[in-house]
Amino acid sequence: MNIRGVVETALYADDLKAAAMFYSDVLGLELLHGDAERDLFYRCGDAVLILFNPALTQQPTSKAPTHGATGPGHVAFNVPQHDLDSWTQHLRSHNVPIETQVTWPNGTRSVYVRDPAGNSIEFTSPSLWFGRE
Amino acid sequence: MNIRGVVETALYADDLKAAAMFYSDVLGLELLHGDAERDLFYRCGDAVLILFNPALTQQPTSKAPTHGATGPGHVAFNVPQHDLDSWTQHLRSHNVPIETQVTWPNGTRSVYVRDPAGNSIEFTSPSLWFGRE
Repeated sequence: MNIRGVVETALYADDLKAAAMFYSDVLGLELLHGDAERDLFYRCGDAVLILFNPALTQQPTSKAPTHGATGPGHVAFNVPQHDLDSWTQHLRSHNVPIETQVTWPNGTRSVYVRDPAGNSIEFTSPSLWFGRE
Repeated sequence: MNIRGVVETALYADDLKAAAMFYSDVLGLELLHGDAERDLFYRCGDAVLILFNPALTQQPTSKAPTHGATGPGHVAFNVPQHDLDSWTQHLRSHNVPIETQVTWPNGTRSVYVRDPAGNSIEFTSPSLWFGRE
């Protein structure tokens, strides 16, 4: 009996319309579900990235428990290392500044930007943790 | 050029020693790296779950950008549906109360608990989003 992985990763954003422009239009993620008021559910490989409006997820419902964080969160997206320069150009062309780039001790590179809510968004590959691609 | 998935999912906890007892000892996740002061990095399938102490990740470093959220976040772990009752028993036996259980419209079940920091932890399977297992 063990945990096989993560199904849902959550970030928080007060303005989900601004978030949708970033995650749908700039990053090109597929919207699975969402009303752009309380939540946006994006397919992200075999898992789901959720943008939640914390003001609404902090209100009790009859289904899932309450939650809702404030302040910048973090997620790292899985992209091939050979696409990182293309991603950098793509992000800049959409007026998303590159905050920093890091080359880690094992040679894996990461590129960091901010989403409209200020969350720290990293582009890297699993080789950062699990060896070469 | 597209995003293949999520490499790093982050949650925040002021007390990483308490978090380690939950994620290592109760959930049985493999610790990849971490000092129990600033961060704990757990293997979670082909990705990494990170517990961050927001008081420390909000401080600038020479490497990755700052971040750090407060208030309860959310993650959903991927477990087989046929293990959910065993997980429920296991969690209760470690004095982790089940906050609620939900059966979603497509028949997929979710079990919800809180980690020691109050994050909303869900156990479910990808069938919730992508059809039957």
